[in-house]
Amino acid sequence: MPSPHALPPVLDRLDAELDAALDRLMSLLRIPSISTDPAFTADVRAAAEALSADLNGMGVRASVRDTTGHPMVVGHIDGPEGAPHVLFYGHYDVQPVDPLRLWDRDPFDPAIEETPAGKVIRGRGSSDDKGQLMTFVEACRAWLAVHRHLPVSVTFLFEGEEESGSPSLVPFLEANREELSCDIALICDTGLFAEDSPAITTMLRGLLGEEITVTGPDKDLHSGAFGGPAQNPIRVLTRILAGLHDDEGRVTVPGFYDGVPVLTNQMRADWANLGFDEAAFLGGVGLTTPAGEREYTVLEQIWARPTCEFNGITGGYTGDGFKTVLPSQASAKVSFRLVGTQDPLAIRESFRAMVTAQVPADCTVSFAEHGASPASVMATDHPAFAAARAALSDEWPKPAAFIGAGGSIPIAGYFKTVLGMDSMLIGFGRDDDRIHSPNEKYDLKSFHKGMRSWARVLAAL
Amino acid sequence: MPSPHALPPVLDRLDAELDAALDRLMSLLRIPSISTDPAFTADVRAAAEALSADLNGMGVRASVRDTTGHPMVVGHIDGPEGAPHVLFYGHYDVQPVDPLRLWDRDPFDPAIEETPAGKVIRGRGSSDDKGQLMTFVEACRAWLAVHRHLPVSVTFLFEGEEESGSPSLVPFLEANREELSCDIALICDTGLFAEDSPAITTMLRGLLGEEITVTGPDKDLHSGAFGGPAQNPIRVLTRILAGLHDDEGRVTVPGFYDGVPVLTNQMRADWANLGFDEAAFLGGVGLTTPAGEREYTVLEQIWARPTCEFNGITGGYTGDGFKTVLPSQASAKVSFRLVGTQDPLAIRESFRAMVTAQVPADCTVSFAEHGASPASVMATDHPAFAAARAALSDEWPKPAAFIGAGGSIPIAGYFKTVLGMDSMLIGFGRDDDRIHSPNEKYDLKSFHKGMRSWARVLAAL
Repeated sequence: MPSPHALPPVLDRLDAELDAALDRLMSLLRIPSISTDPAFTADVRAAAEALSADLNGMGVRASVRDTTGHPMVVGHIDGPEGAPHVLFYGHYDVQPVDPLRLWDRDPFDPAIEETPAGKVIRGRGSSDDKGQLMTFVEACRAWLAVHRHLPVSVTFLFEGEEESGSPSLVPFLEANREELSCDIALICDTGLFAEDSPAITTMLRGLLGEEITVTGPDKDLHSGAFGGPAQNPIRVLTRILAGLHDDEGRVTVPGFYDGVPVLTNQMRADWANLGFDEAAFLGGVGLTTPAGEREYTVLEQIWARPTCEFNGITGGYTGDGFKTVLPSQASAKVSFRLVGTQDPLAIRESFRAMVTAQVPADCTVSFAEHGASPASVMATDHPAFAAARAALSDEWPKPAAFIGAGGSIPIAGYFKTVLGMDSMLIGFGRDDDRIHSPNEKYDLKSFHKGMRSWARVLAAL
Repeated sequence: MPSPHALPPVLDRLDAELDAALDRLMSLLRIPSISTDPAFTADVRAAAEALSADLNGMGVRASVRDTTGHPMVVGHIDGPEGAPHVLFYGHYDVQPVDPLRLWDRDPFDPAIEETPAGKVIRGRGSSDDKGQLMTFVEACRAWLAVHRHLPVSVTFLFEGEEESGSPSLVPFLEANREELSCDIALICDTGLFAEDSPAITTMLRGLLGEEITVTGPDKDLHSGAFGGPAQNPIRVLTRILAGLHDDEGRVTVPGFYDGVPVLTNQMRADWANLGFDEAAFLGGVGLTTPAGEREYTVLEQIWARPTCEFNGITGGYTGDGFKTVLPSQASAKVSFRLVGTQDPLAIRESFRAMVTAQVPADCTVSFAEHGASPASVMATDHPAFAAARAALSDEWPKPAAFIGAGGSIPIAGYFKTVLGMDSMLIGFGRDDDRIHSPNEKYDLKSFHKGMRSWARVLAAL
């Protein structure tokens, strides 16, 4: 544990050097590291190289490590003898940017913008996850600049495939088990609970991603010449998708709810006490009425209930005007958010069987998988949680809360199952960050107080 | 009526000059006159200019006539005093070509290809409708070359918006009522009944085209952060589309079947006698089992039963890989084929009301219209029908039949309602021409015997 006098000059340096830290973040944001689209493969690597070079410049022993997909960046720096050893994880790849026409600026030409709610960093990856990742890097940089050492030993692990299902992650962890095993993992890819309320995310939903393609006629047909006797794959697909929820909005895949925990009254009461503003949350995206299961609050729906969502659908003619085509194929991307001990592989099997059973004569269905990870529930009794909670509460106007999150960060589960390591998720994103959407932003306050928060957490660990 | 000796030299000339006719068709096919996509506006006009120049070169008084959309080509040439006056209609615009990757060659670099079934002209528009249109032009050219005059007076009307709903057609007919009114209209945009069986199409389905767009959240969302409480427009849309047919495949739009004629036993018997090969028809596009209403044969389904088809659907992320987006919008293009006296405008109204009633809180729906035309039933008692039937039977190995068609050529209805003129539809397309699809073709035999057929029909009229 460092001297209590060690922290203030680090915080002061972070304040003084904020502009330089922003410049570094902007450089990283300019690299279009879209991992899911092969056209950007070289850019993904360029982002990895840039991060590795930056770490080396700070005195971290870092390198770009190849995988069968996009590379990992791994770095090590030793703290004092006997100090804890933490692994810090973030991802440097970003989501695609379409529909591009909905962006108010080039997604890879980031800028600081003034908004009614304060300054924001605008650009793809500003919040998810380059901006968040850099809050930790900058905290380390400041510690090193002031004290020439960190208060703990740190292993950095930056992934380039988080937005495309992390296909190389588990093999990489397995192949580097010894090098990467630490006392605890710190993951910065989550959010604040509210503007002034920091949070440690202790429950994450799992994710099963599936793509269905229905094929009927062996070529696109004229809907006049063939409409009637020929199967229409869009019609088959929409009928299948429409049957995935019942009239109450429950998912109809057999066995889907196996392993979904019943919410305790205590948990429901704790969450109700957080003062979550449902109207503001929905209003921020143009909605007024919770659309999910009626017997659950919005927080409960997002944190503790599974879903089946349709993320994309395409078939036939989708350009301007009209084309009277009866298409050969139609496809949809479907994802399931999972909670508790729901088994993604069992659900995949049940889902595929259910879909296949509904495909009529003369049609076939094929499936592509896009990840399958169970939900994560963190070990909040690990002493690091109490230390970090106190450190965060010192930085922010309101005390830190333990919260759930609707998104999926399967890495926490992998750290546990592959490396036997608990994870602690601390992040500074906001619900209105538009991650995965046009005009993604990260509040300057999130970035600034995020760096300061990590400086405090490093001291507290 | 010309001398019976007048026809043979015309037919001989068509045989002798086939290569030159093909060259002219190839030039026309090279112009990418896609009317539904604004990017090709100049090409559509270029096709009109080329046709007008060609007609003028033959001695037809032709010109390109502007509309508020794509231009019309109109030409006139006088026959002998007292001869009938026919209007010939074709369209020089073509369908879009996507998905381009499914074409075996550039759709606008046409070629003659050898196939197991004989030579074909491959390229967009070869069958629909440039190749068909040119069969008539070439027949006229040969008559003029041999006899310096045609046996009838002819008005040519070539449209450039047939594949995009013909928005300018009715206003143009109304504005030029006197100039365009003739004894009968000849329309070449239909098919043979079978390889050696010519046909006059006497029933055409109508077409109502609608585009539905469902909007939910005011931006694309992260399906983890919002999945559950936020409305998903793809889910709303697929549910609506899935409800448009019942379990028996009947369309559920209220009032949809008003005006659908009951098929007479005589008609069903006549059609059954045509010897239509259902297995070959479906097998040609990779299908085995009629998917339409079970109590009707395939021919009855296509010629005499209405449908609701989904021609396109899009929403969310549709690129490679996966994006866990919960989209703001989803949309579909839906078309209805209509028969008998079904009223397209009443059906549009009923359809929109039905869809709107199913849109949940926080979602909105908007509609775009893409044409609305009733079915056409021809006046087969007009004496031109018997004359043409005999002329076609002289040219082809099998006698000509009166048939129905699944497609929609609203022009016949407009000629009747606006100009008071009956139409006769004669064409030489084949079911396997892949019109509206990749690798569209037109049999060389269709082109060659098509020209000869028109030369005979002109003589017979």
